[in-house]
Parts: sequence; structure tokens; C-alpha cells
Amino acid sequence: MVSLWNRRRARLAANWLASRTTRAKVPVERLQLDDVSPELTVYLGQAAYLQLSLYEAMGRAGSSAPTMSGRLVTGVLATTALDRHRAIVAEITRSHHDPAELMEPHREAIDAFLHRTAGADWFESILTGYVTAGILNDLFASLARSLPADVRGRLKNVFDAREEPAVVEELTADIAREPLVASRLAMWGRRLVGDTLLVGRSALASHAREDEERLEPVFTELIAAHTRRMDALGLTA
Amino acid sequence: MVSLWNRRRARLAANWLASRTTRAKVPVERLQLDDVSPELTVYLGQAAYLQLSLYEAMGRAGSSAPTMSGRLVTGVLATTALDRHRAIVAEITRSHHDPAELMEPHREAIDAFLHRTAGADWFESILTGYVTAGILNDLFASLARSLPADVRGRLKNVFDAREEPAVVEELTADIAREPLVASRLAMWGRRLVGDTLLVGRSALASHAREDEERLEPVFTELIAAHTRRMDALGLTA
Repeated sequence: MVSLWNRRRARLAANWLASRTTRAKVPVERLQLDDVSPELTVYLGQAAYLQLSLYEAMGRAGSSAPTMSGRLVTGVLATTALDRHRAIVAEITRSHHDPAELMEPHREAIDAFLHRTAGADWFESILTGYVTAGILNDLFASLARSLPADVRGRLKNVFDAREEPAVVEELTADIAREPLVASRLAMWGRRLVGDTLLVGRSALASHAREDEERLEPVFTELIAAHTRRMDALGLTA
Repeated sequence: MVSLWNRRRARLAANWLASRTTRAKVPVERLQLDDVSPELTVYLGQAAYLQLSLYEAMGRAGSSAPTMSGRLVTGVLATTALDRHRAIVAEITRSHHDPAELMEPHREAIDAFLHRTAGADWFESILTGYVTAGILNDLFASLARSLPADVRGRLKNVFDAREEPAVVEELTADIAREPLVASRLAMWGRRLVGDTLLVGRSALASHAREDEERLEPVFTELIAAHTRRMDALGLTA
């Protein structure tokens, strides 16, 4: 997860800053990420490989689900990962690049990261599919706002978290049935958020080194979304 | 894969037979399957679980692909399996049944079958995703023609083999690069077709016992499609 962003021309940031007083309701992280422009091919290759790897992780986890409904929900997570993968691959093809080629440079880092966060059983794996994927989808959605307008338009809803209600319903029922699962998942969630934010931070920081403190609000926002996700399960973030 | 079909009322078959002389171009297996009507909930539960299991198998196989393009193609197979799964689950929900409940009775048999046909490496696994899924999709598509008209209409294109060109392109390139793969895959393909047809036959036969010889054309047709699939890879079926 390295070398994602190039600094955008100062003009764009200045324009944005100049207009800022009139858009008080825009979330604060927009300022930060509009100042850091991802390189398109790097962004697309990384996003495509991440989603491909996430569906594979769900495929591996699926058959060890303790219930058939858990297995269905794992399939929902795989479906949304593959939908995202497919949308990003279409974007790569449209830009006359080869998906395999753009994905390759990100293989090693993402494999290592997902190996570390794979989880010891289905409960941990599904939480990875919810928490880690959730944080990274938020991050990629935020970054997409700095992509060229046409790409941004086509990728606009790709990272929407439409799978989350199904996961919440399933895990809440599981936790009600096996209360011991809750403390284990709360602990695993803290491990995941730490690992995931570290990876995101190192990527962002390498591109905005002198402005690292300006990126703080992005992470504050990602952590807030993570806390809401854990709250939805009745777990402490 | 047991107890799939109930005998349809003789009237329907008689009607069909009476009209047959005027529709000489309809494929011969229509006659056979119109005579064997699948029980809707059994059909849907079995099809939904099969597709869910096929995507999981692809997810497990994906990361061991020798090339990134092979991994992308494995993702294509997983995508179509999940698309089919999703369409069938939607049909189950529409009929006010619970997908997990309808899938459960088929778990053991399909798990055992897919365990037997999992393959020792990526090449074998991807061939399973092409050959076994291909035969079973053909079988489910044929059976769908005997479902109630509204369901049949909604499931009409669900089993279309739109993933096959991608698999053929990838495996043909792999075989060109590693010619030894060809003989291994030809052998594995024969193992797969044997196992898959046995399973399909035992399901059909249990519902049309006295007419088993009437089902022969169905299997002739499934085998012909399988032969075309292997031909497309330059392999002997």
C-alpha cells in the first residue's frame, strides 16, 4: 500500500480552500484528500487487487461458517467485493490498461496484510470482511473524490457499504446466541483497526510527508466510521 | 442431489407429445425434461447452494493461480456463480421461503461432491469450475424449462455460460506455455464428467425410475456440450 498519491497541483487546493467558507457542511476530510491526488493507475490497480483478494478471503472463510445464514452473509461480502472488483477492472480496461499488469505491483503488500488479518475462524474472518474492508472502502471512496471527474463519476457508488446491514444482522444474532463471541470479536476488531489504519497511514504519509498533521482529520473520520460499525454490533471499538 | 423431480401430470406430457410433430426443431431433450417436473423449493434450494459452494471453491482456488490473469479468470467464475446464487436467492425470497432453510438439505451431498472434485492445484480447480459447473448449469437450465412459467421467465438467462470465453482464453494460453498441463487436464476432465454425470443421473433417475431410458437423450446432450467445452481447450473429452 505504498506510492498511492501524487501531490495535486496547488491551484486545485487553493480553489477549494477559497470556496470553503461557502460549503461548511462538506465533511472535513474533503479538504485533506483534495490536497492529495492519487495516481490513477496506481489507485485502480491497488483497488482492483484489494477487492479480488477480499472476495477470495470470503470464499475461504465461507464454508466454515457455523450457520447457513452466516454462509449466505459471507457470500454477500464476496458479492460486493467482486462487484467492486468488476467495476474497477472495467475502468482499467476503459483506460486501455491491462488489469493483471496494474494489479501485480500491489500483490505482495496486500497479500501480506490480508494474511495477517485473515482470522483464526469464521467469526474473525467475517469481522475482517466487515471492519478492514469497511475502513479501506471508506479510504478508497474518499480518495476517489480526487480522481479525474469522469472516473470519479463512474466510481461514485462503487464503495457504498450496502453489505453492512446483512453482516450486522447475522453477527448480532450470533453474539446473542454465543455471548463469549462478543469479547473475542471486540479484541479482534481492535487488532484489525490498528493494522488497517497503519497501512492506510503509511500510504498517505509517504505522499504528503510535510503535511502529515493535515491528514489527521482523515483518520479521525475513518476511526469514527469504524466506531459506528463496531457499535452496530454492540461491541466497543 | 436427491429428490429433485416430481412426475408432472400426464396431461402436460400428452399435450406436448400431441404438438410435437409441428415442432421438429426443438431440441430432443425438451421432451424428456418436460416429462419430469422439478419440485420448485427443492430445485431452488439445491441450485442456490450449489452456486454458493462453487464461488467458495473458486475463492479457495484463486490465490494459487500461477498468473495474475488466471486469478482474474477465477474471479470471473466466482462472479458468475454468485450472480446465479443471488438470482436464485431472490427467487426464494420472492416465494416467501428462507434461503438458508431451503439450502440446508442439500449441504451434505453437494459438499461431498465438491470435495471429491476440488482438484489438487489451480489448474484442476479451474477445470472443475468450467467443466463441472458447466454440466450442472446445463442441467439446471434444462430443468428450469419445466418450472412454472413466471419463475422460468425470471431464471431464463441465469445459467447462460457467459464466463466460458474467459476461461478458454486463459487455459489455452496456460496450455501453450506448459504443454504437460494438457494431458493432466484431459484426464481430470474425464474424471469430472464421470462424477458429475453420475450425480445428475442419480437425481433424475430417482424421479423417473420407470422411464430411465427416456432420460438418455438428456445425458447425450449434456455430454455433447461437455465435449464442445473440452474441444474449446484443445483437449479430448
